[in-house]
Amino acid sequence: MKRHFLLAIALVAVGFTMTAQRGLMAPPVNSPEIAKDGSVTFKLKAPAADTVRLVIDTRMDTLMRHTGSDSWSITLHGLEPDLYMYHYIVDGIKVLDNENAHVLRDVKNVMNTFVLDPQGDSPMAVHDVPHGEVRAVWYDSPTLGMKRRMMVYLPAGYEESRQRYPVFYLLHGSGGDETVWLEQGRTAQVLDNLIASGKAEPMIVVMPNGNIDEQAASGMTPDNNVQPTFAHQHWMDGTFEQSFNDIMKWVDTNYRTRAAKRYRAIAGLSMGGYHSLYISANQPDDFAYVGLFSPAITRMDQGKCPIYDDLEAKLISQFKQRPKLYWMGIGKDDFLYKDNVKFRELLDKNRLRYTYHESGAGHEWANWRDYLVIFTQLIFK
Amino acid sequence: MKRHFLLAIALVAVGFTMTAQRGLMAPPVNSPEIAKDGSVTFKLKAPAADTVRLVIDTRMDTLMRHTGSDSWSITLHGLEPDLYMYHYIVDGIKVLDNENAHVLRDVKNVMNTFVLDPQGDSPMAVHDVPHGEVRAVWYDSPTLGMKRRMMVYLPAGYEESRQRYPVFYLLHGSGGDETVWLEQGRTAQVLDNLIASGKAEPMIVVMPNGNIDEQAASGMTPDNNVQPTFAHQHWMDGTFEQSFNDIMKWVDTNYRTRAAKRYRAIAGLSMGGYHSLYISANQPDDFAYVGLFSPAITRMDQGKCPIYDDLEAKLISQFKQRPKLYWMGIGKDDFLYKDNVKFRELLDKNRLRYTYHESGAGHEWANWRDYLVIFTQLIFK
Repeated sequence: MKRHFLLAIALVAVGFTMTAQRGLMAPPVNSPEIAKDGSVTFKLKAPAADTVRLVIDTRMDTLMRHTGSDSWSITLHGLEPDLYMYHYIVDGIKVLDNENAHVLRDVKNVMNTFVLDPQGDSPMAVHDVPHGEVRAVWYDSPTLGMKRRMMVYLPAGYEESRQRYPVFYLLHGSGGDETVWLEQGRTAQVLDNLIASGKAEPMIVVMPNGNIDEQAASGMTPDNNVQPTFAHQHWMDGTFEQSFNDIMKWVDTNYRTRAAKRYRAIAGLSMGGYHSLYISANQPDDFAYVGLFSPAITRMDQGKCPIYDDLEAKLISQFKQRPKLYWMGIGKDDFLYKDNVKFRELLDKNRLRYTYHESGAGHEWANWRDYLVIFTQLIFK
Repeated sequence: MKRHFLLAIALVAVGFTMTAQRGLMAPPVNSPEIAKDGSVTFKLKAPAADTVRLVIDTRMDTLMRHTGSDSWSITLHGLEPDLYMYHYIVDGIKVLDNENAHVLRDVKNVMNTFVLDPQGDSPMAVHDVPHGEVRAVWYDSPTLGMKRRMMVYLPAGYEESRQRYPVFYLLHGSGGDETVWLEQGRTAQVLDNLIASGKAEPMIVVMPNGNIDEQAASGMTPDNNVQPTFAHQHWMDGTFEQSFNDIMKWVDTNYRTRAAKRYRAIAGLSMGGYHSLYISANQPDDFAYVGLFSPAITRMDQGKCPIYDDLEAKLISQFKQRPKLYWMGIGKDDFLYKDNVKFRELLDKNRLRYTYHESGAGHEWANWRDYLVIFTQLIFK
């Protein structure tokens, strides 16, 4: 097969060989540099730059110091153990860290990432424990009329054992997809660690795609180059909630589940919290454990779909059947805070008992990873 | 939980809200722009830049045109259908395309990616066909004394059927890991498409990690921030080949395989071709189909490990048992070309029959994706 190449082919092979040899000789550089005391040093070579900034997800945006003719650097102290995402801004242009091959995307924004775990005990880090299996599966959704992709975490030992497991349905927010709880959410690492230490029960975690106008995450559908977006045409219109039984049916058919309310949990962040609220309120016989993580309760679209009507009556009916846990978490500075206060007032007025967790900060992954760690230790006990 | 934040928390929530609202209002931009005739337009905003270059994996490095006060652009015609990887160089610094959230890494080098499929028939693109399942599993390797991660592709229908499937073991090269055949190699897309069109048999594809000094891909092991590298301490020392039965045993135990030579294939690129050569030569009863993709045959380390000794005699013995296919592919400009000539001379001298495919270009993914498409249509027939 003759290929139509635009550059001399010889250069290609030479280029590869040089790269390979450079790679073979150079010791691996781990970036950023994390010292034993947990301080983190970022370094960038940018010879022609006038200003270089370091941006750490929603947490920090700071100038870096010019430390040599071509080098910029900054060392940060006192960061909490967590997953971090960062990038540089060099004279106004976003630049990634070439010494760090680890990247994650937040909706459309690709950033470098690192795990800070100076004590060696962060549930977000990979530890030397048995690892569960992660599957990307396609299920049939007759309700939405399409095959859809979802991610499934199976606890370590699932393949070898014959036992049945409880199921935790974990939903993403607007701008997310079926991959985001595994990527930014560190679900596999959190569950591996909490199960290994006995803090969480072995469970199956099901992470579907809550954007009902797409089959799967950006790039995994026939419009190959479509970009991830917040701007979905159909959005919180009730159809995802209405199609949820397709997911539960597929999961109970294809895995060794304990297919009963006592062994089912549902939780989600932001839009996924809204989905979890309405799915559990409309299916009061299905979920013993409900988690609303910074839920987007602001969007109570009466009349848009029967799923959203008569919420108060549905909640009263749901709580009469005594869910084992109705858990809410939100950051003090979340832009959805006031709407969540109103929702709690609705629950309080009706004397519906829930667990409330208020954290610092706002509508962000540092909170959702924490909520996942907390919530998964409370369910199926 | 109180968090130690380095910036005012209020800014965080406001920032998110602004991002979210901007996202909600903006229509999604797909980048690069691919026209119906297959031409591809790249655009970058870089107000302060003096020069901007576009680099397309190993295929191109060209200056972009300054098309406005802050904009740079270039349109390319005549590119072949394939997966492409690219990045920009702005005044000497590598910059990714902010309008394109799709990225892949080549060893440590993160690049943007897009799929070019103007006719809608590229086997590398996602099409509206039944999709197989992809699993990240951990198997026990008693030989290497550790749990190791590998990726498994199960063809569409595996979950629902009761039938047994042939198994194709597909090995990566130096600098790669268990993820690279799925990422740069597009294995799931290629198999989905070829199986759906009847060009390939439904098969299980097993993609292990061939770097025997790591349990799994960079970032998936307890040294969380370790970087991917060519510079493995133990490398082509025979231990991966010696441990291969651990993988086959695990696969035959955990999947509905046809556990016989007639239904087993092994292939790999570069180092993986070297592994495939020696595993199949040492286990002549195990593989009916062998594929060497640009194999790193240069490294024939006699005496280093019994696995590597007496190759000629082992090959003669292997071919006496008539493998159904012994397939070799290499690019004319591959830096391993001459070593492959020598290896073919060894086969020719002994009248051992193989299929030889010579393509353009060198030691690169465009070739390996093509070889995968060719090889998977020849096996298990």
